[in-house]
Amino acid sequence: MPFVRAIARSAYARGARFVDPFYFDGAVKRTRLELADPETLEFVPSWYGGRYLGLGEHRGARISVQPNPEPAVLDGVDPTRAGRDGLPFVPEIFAVINDRSTNWTVVANPTEGWARAIRPELEPAEALARLEADIVDVCRLDEPDPDAAWQRRADELEAASDKLNDRRFDALHYEGPGTDLTLGLLPTSHWTAARATTAFDISYFANVPTEEVWTAPDPARADGVVRSTKPLDVEGALVRGLVVRFEGGRVVAIDADENAEALRGRVAVDEGAARLGEVALVDRNGRIGRRGTVFLNTLLDENAASHIALGNAYASSVAEEDQPRLNTSAIHIDFMIGGDDVAVTGITREGDRVPVLRDGDWQL
Amino acid sequence: MPFVRAIARSAYARGARFVDPFYFDGAVKRTRLELADPETLEFVPSWYGGRYLGLGEHRGARISVQPNPEPAVLDGVDPTRAGRDGLPFVPEIFAVINDRSTNWTVVANPTEGWARAIRPELEPAEALARLEADIVDVCRLDEPDPDAAWQRRADELEAASDKLNDRRFDALHYEGPGTDLTLGLLPTSHWTAARATTAFDISYFANVPTEEVWTAPDPARADGVVRSTKPLDVEGALVRGLVVRFEGGRVVAIDADENAEALRGRVAVDEGAARLGEVALVDRNGRIGRRGTVFLNTLLDENAASHIALGNAYASSVAEEDQPRLNTSAIHIDFMIGGDDVAVTGITREGDRVPVLRDGDWQL
Repeated sequence: MPFVRAIARSAYARGARFVDPFYFDGAVKRTRLELADPETLEFVPSWYGGRYLGLGEHRGARISVQPNPEPAVLDGVDPTRAGRDGLPFVPEIFAVINDRSTNWTVVANPTEGWARAIRPELEPAEALARLEADIVDVCRLDEPDPDAAWQRRADELEAASDKLNDRRFDALHYEGPGTDLTLGLLPTSHWTAARATTAFDISYFANVPTEEVWTAPDPARADGVVRSTKPLDVEGALVRGLVVRFEGGRVVAIDADENAEALRGRVAVDEGAARLGEVALVDRNGRIGRRGTVFLNTLLDENAASHIALGNAYASSVAEEDQPRLNTSAIHIDFMIGGDDVAVTGITREGDRVPVLRDGDWQL
Repeated sequence: MPFVRAIARSAYARGARFVDPFYFDGAVKRTRLELADPETLEFVPSWYGGRYLGLGEHRGARISVQPNPEPAVLDGVDPTRAGRDGLPFVPEIFAVINDRSTNWTVVANPTEGWARAIRPELEPAEALARLEADIVDVCRLDEPDPDAAWQRRADELEAASDKLNDRRFDALHYEGPGTDLTLGLLPTSHWTAARATTAFDISYFANVPTEEVWTAPDPARADGVVRSTKPLDVEGALVRGLVVRFEGGRVVAIDADENAEALRGRVAVDEGAARLGEVALVDRNGRIGRRGTVFLNTLLDENAASHIALGNAYASSVAEEDQPRLNTSAIHIDFMIGGDDVAVTGITREGDRVPVLRDGDWQL
């Protein structure tokens, strides 16, 4: 609440017309999953998506404050039920991302509940202080000019994406402990990093922090097995020890030490939910992976390691001619598959193998 | 938050399909009023009203938790600015009241901020304990069966409204310290109390507590001067010592010891905002007036004393033929004008004067 109020004050001071604070209460979601008729769990009021479409019409700026809900708020809830309720995510979020009508960003608010979930062994005040220090570090707030530091890092990441775009790989091959996965890219799959631009030419960072270089893969080509290298928070349910097997681009098996059902439920919501919509490479020079904290939140953890996402692709990832081939879905769930011990190799159209990441360093 | 979570738990346990907790943050409204361009202050995003219309389409139940915002949260804000921003109220609330598509109620949540505004001289914990005791009392929660107690009180209030309906007064005359006001009634003005019914026959109490007997007046006939007998909270700005003068049904002067501008601003929003939409009589047998606490919140204070409301009328107050004569406006602001020292007299179509309330007791 103080965090949101500070954002509102800053926005009004910079000339915002209206600030619409929207709070999603994970505790009420938990109650719903425990008590409501299971047949109703997919219901979403029309005005939840309407808010995003309205923001698009107004060319509004969107700031998503994470974690929301706090991690593990759904721990112990029947994961089959949890899989049916994807809130606070709604598919209209993709509509306003893909039409580039809103400039948006995702930021981290260190809360006590989040700090406790990350470091349950510490006193609450100590856990919060550690989380705050983590966020200062990974957001580069200790730099004399954090904005300038981010512009420099964006230059580095965009240089890496330029090199990947020059290569036009046909596929990527991941090899590491428990992982042997090959996934195809589309002819026009375009690697992007850091800065994005609205349809009306506002430049912005969609995530802070951001350490990834990403594009959309070919949803028809993914084969092999991949072991997640970090726990994954699926709308409040924590999936640990995740292993996913793909055949012909499609998920054919999901296993996990905990809460596999929560992900299985989300992956069953539509045809595209079992296919890939994003592939992202992360080098070892970002601050998140180096710090080693497992944040139990996708914003931060996905930027610690190379990852892939099940579900919807971002339209801006490919040229016009490949748009019909992009994956579409009501979900978009990133999970981490990279690390220093996972080698990433590019495969050219001619079948040549070119090292891309070794020990977390770019090889291009 | 714990209060809203408890309501959500109870609703889901009783079979609710979806509970949509919506929080309006008075502190962010205050920031808007302080910093935003004054020309933008009347802007309301379409989805704020859309939520109510959507609830109507679903025949949803609505529970409004008061106070929202907490009283005095706008203290010291330029009242001309405050008068331009009526949130969290939106006119769509009237749409779903008048089409009787939602069963709704207004309830009181004792918060620390509210308790402090009422009794700033006490320690916070003591102020909160006093407010909680107030609410237990006025909501009759100390009764062995509060629901049965409310049904009995509703029977009493409905008996009083039946007698008023039998009389079919042409006008009411208020006389007391600083008050000499005559207001006209419409030919079919129908007095109502306590229980209401949706278009699909769910019976409900729209306010808890409720102590009033009310109808819609003739917006073309109000003449004289009226002194408010309680402070009035206008969306966060506290108006004290309010005196309002009417001519030909219209407000021609608003004076107050504090924050007159906040009410003047609301009364200027449209033509109907300066005319009356409700007249309500409250006897001395309710618990609120007897307790003497000034709650700085309309839900409770309006039920302590007879009151009138500027702005929109409730369609259910008159028959079909008088609907076009009802007042319409984007606002509805109740203010208290009654008390033991304010005599209310009914004036018949023949000009006879009939005592209605004397010393706070029914005379009919």
